[in-house]
Amino acid sequence: MKHARIVLDGIAHDATERDGQLLLADGRLVAPGAVTWLPPLSATPRPRTIFALGLNYADHAKELAFKAPEEPLVFLKSESTLTGNRSFTRRPAGVQFMHYECELTVVVGRTARKVKRDDAYDFIAGYTVANDYAIRDYLENWYRPNLRVKNRDACTPLGPWRVDAADIANPMALALQTTVNGLVTQSGNTQGMIFDVPFLIEYFSSFMTLQPGDLILTGTPDGVVDCLPGDVIVTEIEGIGALTNTIEQGPA
Amino acid sequence: MKHARIVLDGIAHDATERDGQLLLADGRLVAPGAVTWLPPLSATPRPRTIFALGLNYADHAKELAFKAPEEPLVFLKSESTLTGNRSFTRRPAGVQFMHYECELTVVVGRTARKVKRDDAYDFIAGYTVANDYAIRDYLENWYRPNLRVKNRDACTPLGPWRVDAADIANPMALALQTTVNGLVTQSGNTQGMIFDVPFLIEYFSSFMTLQPGDLILTGTPDGVVDCLPGDVIVTEIEGIGALTNTIEQGPA
Repeated sequence: MKHARIVLDGIAHDATERDGQLLLADGRLVAPGAVTWLPPLSATPRPRTIFALGLNYADHAKELAFKAPEEPLVFLKSESTLTGNRSFTRRPAGVQFMHYECELTVVVGRTARKVKRDDAYDFIAGYTVANDYAIRDYLENWYRPNLRVKNRDACTPLGPWRVDAADIANPMALALQTTVNGLVTQSGNTQGMIFDVPFLIEYFSSFMTLQPGDLILTGTPDGVVDCLPGDVIVTEIEGIGALTNTIEQGPA
Repeated sequence: MKHARIVLDGIAHDATERDGQLLLADGRLVAPGAVTWLPPLSATPRPRTIFALGLNYADHAKELAFKAPEEPLVFLKSESTLTGNRSFTRRPAGVQFMHYECELTVVVGRTARKVKRDDAYDFIAGYTVANDYAIRDYLENWYRPNLRVKNRDACTPLGPWRVDAADIANPMALALQTTVNGLVTQSGNTQGMIFDVPFLIEYFSSFMTLQPGDLILTGTPDGVVDCLPGDVIVTEIEGIGALTNTIEQGPA
């Protein structure tokens, strides 16, 4: 099942998907364009940890002129960065590189500690799509990545749907695609991950406890391009959803 | 006023300090040793962002053989790292360096966006003490600091008290001290911060929104030493409190 969290006439609702429409708990069927979309996390606890992988696709590491990592490169994101489908994200004035990043996102469903990869899928509640924008201008700082690269307000659109884990037969073979103003600019497959989802659950849970509601943004394949004010960016993952975001001009 | 969050006979309570004892809402006065202490955050919303400063005292940067930074070096911590006063924190088997870090911690009280330093104190609810343990073995990784340095379970004792901002006349002139098994090993003053609290509020709020409940761990002065299983570490800040933690042996 596909779950969403939306606001209609000022009131927040949980919803599920039916024939491309939003089915509310009271039986109303609402068009996707008639609501404000929130991150699709209502049925799960607030995250204690939002993990994000850097350079987790070899082709993307190469594109940025980095060597593919030998262990997961991970940073944390603030919950304040999350925003919903059909939202706006600001490009700060004066920056040179604002890249989208289409990423399969894992929603943790159960407390996980020292989980082996063969059991990892038992701990996943579902999946959603993230667009993990990066302002690359600020990358070079001893503490990487600088907050200004990855932790601005609303720099992580999430959604539109959270899809139950049971509905995704193999999360490690899903097509990812990004379009900018309707033109395909990024095209990959989760097969390309260096550290796959079961590995990541095993790795994190070997030294931290994963909590229900925690999120893992699993990295992006190659094909990132600079996003400019007015651009409409759609990050899409096969079987999960197409997440729309529009860039607006921000202050410096 | 000094606020705490404790568990007594299996039930969580808010408490305040009276003559070194814990005053519960029902009027009971309880000894500090009779309860389990939680992080003193009950009266504030759960944090969306936990900021931590690296190398924010020049003497500590020198001690670790780093140049003092020219802009704040900041990383984020998971809420899963927090634990209370009188708790235990594990030293993983086989590591070489587990350092305590006594840190003045700011609790944000109001939504803060583009705040100027002259107004910064208006946005602070209070202060507490953190011990921001670091497992330095894992420091060298392109995404710094590696999660295994700073984001293990219970690696951030916090408390015992959250002290109202109004009770701290000048947070930028407080003595910090750490003892290991009763011997003083770290002695500094918040005057030594490179980027002081008003600067940090201005800096963060220039590109992110600070939310009520967010925490800022402001860094530690020099005098860090390796902590071994059985060591009792007390990190203390003048006027705020003395936070006790015991190291226990963990698995590899």
